[in-house]
Order: sequence, then structure tokens, then C-alpha cells
Amino acid sequence: MSQKNVYLDYAASTPMDPKVLKAMEPYFSKQFFNPSAVYSKAKDVRSVVEDSRRSVALNLGAKSSEIIFTAGGTEANNLALTGVMNAHPNGNMVISAIEHPSVYAPAKNFNARICPVDKEGLIKINKLKDLIDDDTNLVSIIYVSNEIGVIEPLKEVASIIQTIRSDRLSRGITRPIYFHTDACQAANYLDLHISKLGVDLMTLNGSKIYGPKQSGTLFVKSSVRLKPIIFGGGQERGLRSGTENVPGIIGFAAALDLAQDSKKSESDRLAHLQEYFITSLTNNFQNAKINGSRIKRVVNNVHVTFPNVDNERLLISLDEKGIMAAAGSACSASNELPSSVLKAIGLTNLEARNSIRFSFGRYLIKSDLEYTLDTLKTLLKLS
Amino acid sequence: MSQKNVYLDYAASTPMDPKVLKAMEPYFSKQFFNPSAVYSKAKDVRSVVEDSRRSVALNLGAKSSEIIFTAGGTEANNLALTGVMNAHPNGNMVISAIEHPSVYAPAKNFNARICPVDKEGLIKINKLKDLIDDDTNLVSIIYVSNEIGVIEPLKEVASIIQTIRSDRLSRGITRPIYFHTDACQAANYLDLHISKLGVDLMTLNGSKIYGPKQSGTLFVKSSVRLKPIIFGGGQERGLRSGTENVPGIIGFAAALDLAQDSKKSESDRLAHLQEYFITSLTNNFQNAKINGSRIKRVVNNVHVTFPNVDNERLLISLDEKGIMAAAGSACSASNELPSSVLKAIGLTNLEARNSIRFSFGRYLIKSDLEYTLDTLKTLLKLS
Repeated sequence: MSQKNVYLDYAASTPMDPKVLKAMEPYFSKQFFNPSAVYSKAKDVRSVVEDSRRSVALNLGAKSSEIIFTAGGTEANNLALTGVMNAHPNGNMVISAIEHPSVYAPAKNFNARICPVDKEGLIKINKLKDLIDDDTNLVSIIYVSNEIGVIEPLKEVASIIQTIRSDRLSRGITRPIYFHTDACQAANYLDLHISKLGVDLMTLNGSKIYGPKQSGTLFVKSSVRLKPIIFGGGQERGLRSGTENVPGIIGFAAALDLAQDSKKSESDRLAHLQEYFITSLTNNFQNAKINGSRIKRVVNNVHVTFPNVDNERLLISLDEKGIMAAAGSACSASNELPSSVLKAIGLTNLEARNSIRFSFGRYLIKSDLEYTLDTLKTLLKLS
Repeated sequence: MSQKNVYLDYAASTPMDPKVLKAMEPYFSKQFFNPSAVYSKAKDVRSVVEDSRRSVALNLGAKSSEIIFTAGGTEANNLALTGVMNAHPNGNMVISAIEHPSVYAPAKNFNARICPVDKEGLIKINKLKDLIDDDTNLVSIIYVSNEIGVIEPLKEVASIIQTIRSDRLSRGITRPIYFHTDACQAANYLDLHISKLGVDLMTLNGSKIYGPKQSGTLFVKSSVRLKPIIFGGGQERGLRSGTENVPGIIGFAAALDLAQDSKKSESDRLAHLQEYFITSLTNNFQNAKINGSRIKRVVNNVHVTFPNVDNERLLISLDEKGIMAAAGSACSASNELPSSVLKAIGLTNLEARNSIRFSFGRYLIKSDLEYTLDTLKTLLKLS
């Protein structure tokens, strides 16, 4: 009997779209030239890299010169935080309590204040206001939580920051304040136009949008000053030295295009599956509790606590039935500690260890969820 | 009439070996799982990543745990320098005057001393000794110069450092001193066994060995303490956070294997072509001067000064005839300034602007060089 495979961990990794690979292929072994070389074949490669940059910029409503290609989302988040803080000595930053490790880990190297979230996972706007002072250079709030799928109110934060800017200006305070968002989990489903969001820096990641692993982008508004974290030949306006990953850049741009083109239809499709899955879970498992806001929620995430069910054991049992899901974030290499995100929304350590993330994506169909629900029914009766 | 294409810029970029792409292909869209996830399909991917790590380690005579996969050679050099210096406050480092920008640019962020080279491009060993003091934490000497192809005497440097270690020990000085080499241009032709070379850290780069762009490795001996430059989920023993670039890692390992397997035969083949090209150049162009040691020289590099010939113009003329070569390093995005490497070996600014690098590789055959020589004869008579 062939084993059924149900992948429910799209938030951890996505399969590369065949169209993305097709776009990359000519640049592996044929048009392999270093884009900084002077001959015409190298200039052709440079020109394709710049086309990719324009394409990414277009999806963000940004200028081409504001797009910095990085080796992945973690690097882009590090460049944003470390780059801004190093360019503005003696400043502080404010981040949310539910940031990805690639934000909170570099933040710990600086004077970082943590803005709490409510039980729904939404940042407490009034606390945020309190935490910002005249030395705050950076506010970094995740667009969509990679763990609990909550969509943070970026526009509201942007409006607060705009008010602070005006106030600083009127008082003659010259220290700038920038707004960064990690949008890695948003790019498949949500609008990325930087003027609508009001952000000054934004991180995107190829591996979460059916693009190449360790490809990514940091949008950096032209007014933002930041220092590189990797120094050398001066590629990417000096902000990311190293010979450009030409196939990776082309693949990233193609993937972002595809993701943004299909965001409406995929959102509609997955919203139905999400509604079905959440309703079925809460109907079938009386104690099951969905974590994170039900309203401000990305369509591809269902995060659930099954009281008194050890998530590690449940994941292994699900895996034996071909169902792939996650406890916490696979982006953390050692995830033995209870998730700080779940603590932030008020879960106890025990509740955190009873929680599972199911994340949806392009190849998921309803029968996969039916099979998952049936399997869960069997497993949870036994446990 | 079809245009002849002669690629003589292998030091800037190499085409990806079809075998490398074949090794990577299953990991783009099928085995795309995040290696940190808990289900068995992800563990299979983890296992392939660890196989790649073992394969790289084997080629270096290192332990698997000493191999850190990075996004390219520039990042690996930055991790080595910044990582060691940040882990040992108030220290200094010594680098050669002919390092790649990805070494000398991060070095400038610290107390860095520059060791001069002689007219052949070989580091002055006695000067090196003088520059090292009790606060020196790191010596970084390039294995093979990316510009002039000179092979630096790493073993001699290692022996000096070993003596310094013993001396520090005897005097109760606890500050460690490490030896790093950028081996990006060596991996196709030279031995990489770390015990023979005596290095504690070594940088390798996929894009120079017919592997994927922005793939690379930093070998870090288990005794070396260093801090990460990119923080997050803690992948690569905490030294390079970010979801692993699985296809990139697999491709890098495959490329290194192929490069090291063929290093003897390729060296023999290219040594003949190099001898032929150098002899023909010096016979046909009376004023032509080969830069860099003729003896301590990698087989794939011919760097030549044609007095009173503007290299930019010559490169454009060569390009019109389908010949691709370089002035200075394509790894520098803005190479308008005369190369510091050429200055270091005593060339004037004018001589530097009269110099060209021809670098050889796997698909070069003798008739390509004959054509290049014929073209040069025509062009240099006219100029």
C-alpha cells in the first residue's frame, strides 16, 4: 500500500516552483559570467540581474536602487537590524515579543526593548508607544508571525512612527527612526507595497515563496542609512559584497512575481481550507484551542493546542502516517526550549509543549485535511 | 560567420559542472524539506547535508564538525576575520598586501597590519615576523592571489606561527594566534589538506570551482573560538544562521570533490598551456612583462603588462573578437582605482592600467590561445 504524503509545513520550506527553476537554468552553466566583468556576455548577465531587481521593486512599489539582494531572510533581517544600529551609535530599538530568531538574536547584540503582545498575538500599541523614546532608531515588527500566523497592524505602527518623526522634527531632534518588517511569511498572501505598509525596511525570503533557498531581499528606503555586515568587493551598493548569486536572484524575482500574482486566488482557496480545518478541529476535539487571532490571521496557518498531548510524540505519530507538521519553528536548529512566541501569548510551558503548527500551501487539497483529521481522531483517542 | 568565443576569465567565475547541477536537482522541488524539521523526509535531507559536510571534510583532512557552510567565499572570509577578532577583543591581525577585497575590507574594521610582498608577489617573511606581536590574534594570507596567481608560502607561515605559539605558552601569554587562508583560487589545482598547510581557518568558494554561486565553506579548526556575524536559528553550529541552502551545499561538496579529483590532470594540462602562452607572449611582444612569480605560480593565471597599452581599451577590443579577459579583479564592483595588489608588487599606476589577467580553466584548449595570440598581435600593432 502506498503511503499517503500530506505536507503541512509550508511555513518551514516550500518546494521550488518548476517555473522558477526554468528561469534559473540558463544561468548555471551557460550564462555563468561574473556580472562585474567588462565583456559583453558579462554585461548581459548584469542586465538580467538588474531586470530581476526592477521586477522585485515593482512588486513592492519601490525603486530598483532600494532592493538589496541577500543570501536569505535571516541575512536580510540581520542586515536591517545590525546595519541600522551600527550606523546610529548609542541608539535603541523596539521589537515585538513574537519576532523570528533572525530578528531577536541580532537584536540582543544591541539595546533592544521588547514590545509585548496580547493573548491574540497582536502587539500592544500603547506599550509600543511607551517603549519608543528619543534614542529609538528602529522599530521591527513581524508582518505575519511564522509560528502563530497572526498579521500585525503594520499601518498602525507606521502611523505612530510618522507622528514621532514629526514630533522629533519640531523639537529639533535629528536622530532618525526607521520601521522594519520581516515579511517572509506574508509574501504569498498579502500586499507588499511599501508605501501602503509605511515601512522603511522589509525582509523577503525565497525559500518561503517557492523560490531558491538562501535567496532573499532587503528593501531599504533610499533615506535609510545603514552599514553592511559583510564587506568586500562592494556589490549591492556596498551592502552585500560577494559575487552575485545570479541564478538565485533570478529565481527569487520569478518566485516573488508568481507569489504576488496568485496571492488573491491562493488566499481565497486556502481561506476555505483553513475555515474547514479550524471548524473540524474545534468540533471534533473538545479541548483543542486555536492559538493566535482568528481575524487578523494569515490564511495558511492553523496553530492548535491539544491539552495533555505531547507535541513531539504526536508529530512522530503523524509522520508515521505521512503527515508532516511542526512544533514551533523549524527555523531554529535547536528547538528544545518552549517557544518564546507561545509564552508571549500567555501559554504555559506545558501548553506550548502541547501545541502544533499546521501550515498550508500550494499543493494542499481538502482530502489531505480530511485524512489529517481522521488520523488525528485515531491518534488522540489512543494517546 | 560565427563568432569565436574564448573565455579567459575563469578566476572571476566558472560555469557550473553539469554533474554538480545533476547532484543538486532532486533538492529543488522534491526533497525541498527544511533540514531542521522533525519528520523523516526532513531528516533524510539533513542526512544528505551531513554527507556533504563529511565529503568536504574528507577533502580537507578535517573533521565534519569543522566545516561551516556559508553563502560564498566573501561571507566565509568575513566570518573568519570578524568572527575571530570579535571573539578576542583588543587584538590585532596581520594580513598580506595582496589579499582579496573580502579580506582587506573587513580587516579595515579592526587593528590590521599589512605585510608587504616582494616584486614577485611573495610575502616578506621577515616583515611578517616583525608585524606579529603578543596581541596578534590572526594572520590571514591568501593561498593563491586572485590577481597575479602567486602561490604564497603557507607552510612557512604556519611554522612561524607554531613557533610563536610555543613562545607565548612558555611566557604564559594566553592570547591565541590563528592562521587563516583564503583558498578560493587554489581549490582547483592545489592540495587543501589543512594539516599539511598548517592553517586553522580556510575559505573555499563554490563559484570558482565549477559549483554554485554564493556557496562556500569556512573550515574552522575545533580549537578556534569565533563569533558569528549572522545571528538567528543557530544553524551551522551557531556560526551561520538561516535555513541551510541544501542544493547549494550539495552542489558545493560535489564541485569540490570533482575539483580535487582532477587537480593533478588539470594542473598538468594547464601548465603546458600556461608555458606556451607565457613563452609566446614574451617572444612576440618584446615589452610584455609577466607579473608575479614564475615559479610559485598557479597554473591557470597569466598576468601581463603591455607597456603603453590601455587595458580597458584592449579588453574592449578583445571582447569584440570574442575574447573574455580581465583587468584587476571582477570581484570588485567598482574597479576604477588601480589595483592595490599591483601596487604592492611595485607597479606604477600607469603600469597597472596597462595590465591584463588571463585566467584558464576546464574548457580552454590550445587553439583558443593561438587565436588569442593572433588577435593580440593584430590589436597591439594597431594601438
